[in-house]
Amino acid sequence: MKDIDLSTIESPDDIRKMNIGELTQLASEMRSALLKKLSVHGGHVGPNLGMVEAVIALHYVFDTPQDKIIFDVSHQTYPHKMLTGRMEAFTDPAHYNDVTGYTNPQESEYDLYSLGHTSSAVALAAGLAKARDMKGEKENVVAVIGDGSLSGGVAFEGLDYGATLGSNFIVIVNDNQMSIAENHGGIYENLQLLRETNGTAELNLFRAMGYDYRYVNYGNDLKSLIEMFESVKDTDRPVVVHINTMKGMGLPIAEADKETFHFSGPFDLRTGASLNEPAQNDAPEDYSEHFAKGMLRRMKENDKVVTITAATPGVLGFDKARREEAGKQFIDTAIAEQSSVDIASGLAKGGMRPVVGFVSSFLQRAYDQFSQDIALNKQPATFVIFYGTMFGMNDETHLGFFDIALLSNIPDLLYLAPTCKEEFDSMLDWSIKQDKLSVVVRIPGAVATSNPEIKLLDDYSKPQYDVVRNGNEVALIGAGLMFGIMSQAADILAEEGVKVSLINPRNLSTLDTATLDSLKDYKLIVTAEDGIIDGGFGQKVASYLGESPVNVVNLGLPKEFLNRYDYSELQKRCGLTPAQIAEKVKSALQ
Amino acid sequence: MKDIDLSTIESPDDIRKMNIGELTQLASEMRSALLKKLSVHGGHVGPNLGMVEAVIALHYVFDTPQDKIIFDVSHQTYPHKMLTGRMEAFTDPAHYNDVTGYTNPQESEYDLYSLGHTSSAVALAAGLAKARDMKGEKENVVAVIGDGSLSGGVAFEGLDYGATLGSNFIVIVNDNQMSIAENHGGIYENLQLLRETNGTAELNLFRAMGYDYRYVNYGNDLKSLIEMFESVKDTDRPVVVHINTMKGMGLPIAEADKETFHFSGPFDLRTGASLNEPAQNDAPEDYSEHFAKGMLRRMKENDKVVTITAATPGVLGFDKARREEAGKQFIDTAIAEQSSVDIASGLAKGGMRPVVGFVSSFLQRAYDQFSQDIALNKQPATFVIFYGTMFGMNDETHLGFFDIALLSNIPDLLYLAPTCKEEFDSMLDWSIKQDKLSVVVRIPGAVATSNPEIKLLDDYSKPQYDVVRNGNEVALIGAGLMFGIMSQAADILAEEGVKVSLINPRNLSTLDTATLDSLKDYKLIVTAEDGIIDGGFGQKVASYLGESPVNVVNLGLPKEFLNRYDYSELQKRCGLTPAQIAEKVKSALQ
Repeated sequence: MKDIDLSTIESPDDIRKMNIGELTQLASEMRSALLKKLSVHGGHVGPNLGMVEAVIALHYVFDTPQDKIIFDVSHQTYPHKMLTGRMEAFTDPAHYNDVTGYTNPQESEYDLYSLGHTSSAVALAAGLAKARDMKGEKENVVAVIGDGSLSGGVAFEGLDYGATLGSNFIVIVNDNQMSIAENHGGIYENLQLLRETNGTAELNLFRAMGYDYRYVNYGNDLKSLIEMFESVKDTDRPVVVHINTMKGMGLPIAEADKETFHFSGPFDLRTGASLNEPAQNDAPEDYSEHFAKGMLRRMKENDKVVTITAATPGVLGFDKARREEAGKQFIDTAIAEQSSVDIASGLAKGGMRPVVGFVSSFLQRAYDQFSQDIALNKQPATFVIFYGTMFGMNDETHLGFFDIALLSNIPDLLYLAPTCKEEFDSMLDWSIKQDKLSVVVRIPGAVATSNPEIKLLDDYSKPQYDVVRNGNEVALIGAGLMFGIMSQAADILAEEGVKVSLINPRNLSTLDTATLDSLKDYKLIVTAEDGIIDGGFGQKVASYLGESPVNVVNLGLPKEFLNRYDYSELQKRCGLTPAQIAEKVKSALQ
Repeated sequence: MKDIDLSTIESPDDIRKMNIGELTQLASEMRSALLKKLSVHGGHVGPNLGMVEAVIALHYVFDTPQDKIIFDVSHQTYPHKMLTGRMEAFTDPAHYNDVTGYTNPQESEYDLYSLGHTSSAVALAAGLAKARDMKGEKENVVAVIGDGSLSGGVAFEGLDYGATLGSNFIVIVNDNQMSIAENHGGIYENLQLLRETNGTAELNLFRAMGYDYRYVNYGNDLKSLIEMFESVKDTDRPVVVHINTMKGMGLPIAEADKETFHFSGPFDLRTGASLNEPAQNDAPEDYSEHFAKGMLRRMKENDKVVTITAATPGVLGFDKARREEAGKQFIDTAIAEQSSVDIASGLAKGGMRPVVGFVSSFLQRAYDQFSQDIALNKQPATFVIFYGTMFGMNDETHLGFFDIALLSNIPDLLYLAPTCKEEFDSMLDWSIKQDKLSVVVRIPGAVATSNPEIKLLDDYSKPQYDVVRNGNEVALIGAGLMFGIMSQAADILAEEGVKVSLINPRNLSTLDTATLDSLKDYKLIVTAEDGIIDGGFGQKVASYLGESPVNVVNLGLPKEFLNRYDYSELQKRCGLTPAQIAEKVKSALQ
């Protein structure tokens, strides 16, 4: 077989002329290019390697961009980008950073949405299909959703509505038998049954919901995929095409260890070994490690403690060995943020001590459950928020600085912001011990910094600010990770003779009005938080002191969907370096 | 058959001694009492009348309160309350107000949760069952969920997880073939098929998800129900019991018109006619009427306009006749708030002009879709928020004053607050006309008040406050419904010689900094909004002006889950009467 010059593939038109042999060769070369880029650059390894053939077949069969394809969560769209005018970003190291890790309408007309949260594609596509029908047009509308995303409630809502369209609506279920880690839940038993019966089992979730159903057992075989997609193209009713693919295909280590290679940094192509800088012996532990070790201890000490994740066990530091160690006390609800909160509520009601670990950006999906089923019902569950920081994930779909505004304004939900690992442990231990309050603890950044001098409390139920340093002119109030930065700013100011107080507020949801009252005759209070200013902690302070002579400055992030921002540039833009804060204070005092 | 003295029923123990004849008589008398109370007092008519027998059978068979029953949304629990120590609240008019309309743990140990949002019961019960298993206990755990609630994504998440419990877990699906209005979606086709085949159809959503499945065709027949519940009691695995009940049973008019009698005010028992005060000819129109009439006109003028509801068409003013008039341009997604937002996003992407009407309290469930699939993706969809006011629903589960804090802090989501019907129409018309921005319009209260002098804009995309009255000492900024109250306060103050500005901010999400800058040398600014102060509009103003000499007072509601509060008492408690606001200003000026 002749080599294919990938650089000649500028649009799907270029592959529609190929025969099956050429397409197979194309898949092989695309996979090689992907492997090379991924091993150097990192990214979503398994999801993309598994979908090379399906993506080629989709663009071969469907007349994109007139036909519309929405990829759920869109972390499996590197092959799609390669075929739609962005090949260079996968073949030329100088251009590796030209594209984002997700579909992005600013990059290409073939990308309909910027998507990074799972489970929405079916409902979005149903809306598109409805628009098409209302306009009397005829294009195909295709949603591509991974089996791991099927468990999210909105996927089911979308399937439920899509079934009623009575027109062309094609849902490709990419079944690679994995979420990020193992799949959990009743639907996965059904997918397994369907795989085992080559799609013929009578018990069929999709047919029960009103869909036609097709099954492709060799979901990495181009010929099978093309024939199947051709058979459903221009269908006049809703159909599910269930394709059985191999996550990580082409990289044996990724086929064998799907969880590690769901997303990976740079790695050795032969061994799979990480090429990230090895951790130094004296490197500080990260919070995932710290959390997991601590929870294993807590679960051993108290068999009522349960650790819960909605499909991100790795974020919580619970690799397979630790999950096994925790046994029944570790629950993975699958991608199902809403029910994970409700299950925690039920566990708490039943006398257990649930601790749910959430990625900041994903907890958004469970707001109503936080409000109604936890806070309103005063269930003593604990939630730990990971990546709730400007220094965490920087894709516009995964930003970690909205959770303070989201959770701190729910009544009867105590939101705590520790500043170091000792305080984190103290707050988490207290939260598990008490049984009256619903508590959220926000992890302060990525690295578990230590502050042996931190003043810990026996009870965090009432707001009680820690006045670490006492001046009477200016107060710096730094929440969570910002406390350390404010502390440095305080040092600068003190050296220059400013009488500065430094305060750790500990609590993001309720003001310590006694301490704030004691600051009313100060000249200036500066608050800083690792989240958007709007709706956040600092604005509560500004509002409370609105009639006092003291001036208040709120520092934090702008209310914007930033994308792939540079951390230190953003910090500077927000005036959040210690030197900038000190400058701000000095100029305000003049 | 001898009469049963309902006042002797103090707990489920009192019915467990009865024979089937006595239980049937009990059901009849309970239904009569319910009808009498409902006709005088109003409440959820259809859901409760349909569940009398099932609730009796549940308490007869299961050993409540040791066995645990969670009623989804819990508006069908009047019969449950009658059997669990609260009979008087249904038989004695003097005690009609003793109980809330939902389960409430403060009322009874038989009530596990305060629930008013749908679809959560299965996941909550799964958590309870898991706790039981971990503790090695043996009680039955039962979730009772109506077919209308099944479409909510979290119900599916709960079913998915519950299927994996591998232990006692009983889900009663109360199929009355109705949500509030008709049901929509693929699952309802399956429920219909199951009803038509007496539960024997091979296509079975519940079995596909891993549940045992039982069907009761006469879901208002006590004997069938008791036998079925006895057959699943102490089951050692997850089972769905599908019962086919008659919504509104016992009130022919409610059986025939299920939508009207889902929830009703007082009515004539014989004719079903409403006993609420008839509307006066000169009574102002309510916003549901105003919205529906306006949308019908807009949809006629522009066939790209689509009105969408997630199962609350009545709130939007779309009764059956209007739905028919709108035809394909009216979409009811079923109880599925998340997908309703995504479907709107897909429609907008496809060139349509979707307008989604939401109840304030229910939109909470779609926060992630507002953020990711609408705002981040800049889809020009419009959302209209009903009951977003302290003067709306006052059950703790249905409060309408959290939406400003929730939506106004999402980037790229424009939240507009009209103050009267002319302004509402102007903003809604503009929103539909433009195709760049995602827009939310908050309806200002219940009654569509008119203000012919309102200054309307051609473009609401940029924040532009309307300075209606110009003083230079005090500024009153009243958002939405609060503008009228502030206007009255301004009149009082002006009469007393205070130089007062009156401002309609129009925009809740972005500050008009030019106008605010012009107020920096005022003595005082007072903001008022019809929502919680925390995270809301006023705190943004206070924060922005934190370094200015002007004092700022934020008025609004406390961050609390209030329950069945008195409207005017709450208004007074918050200092939100015109006289109180004027007093506050005067005392602040001294």
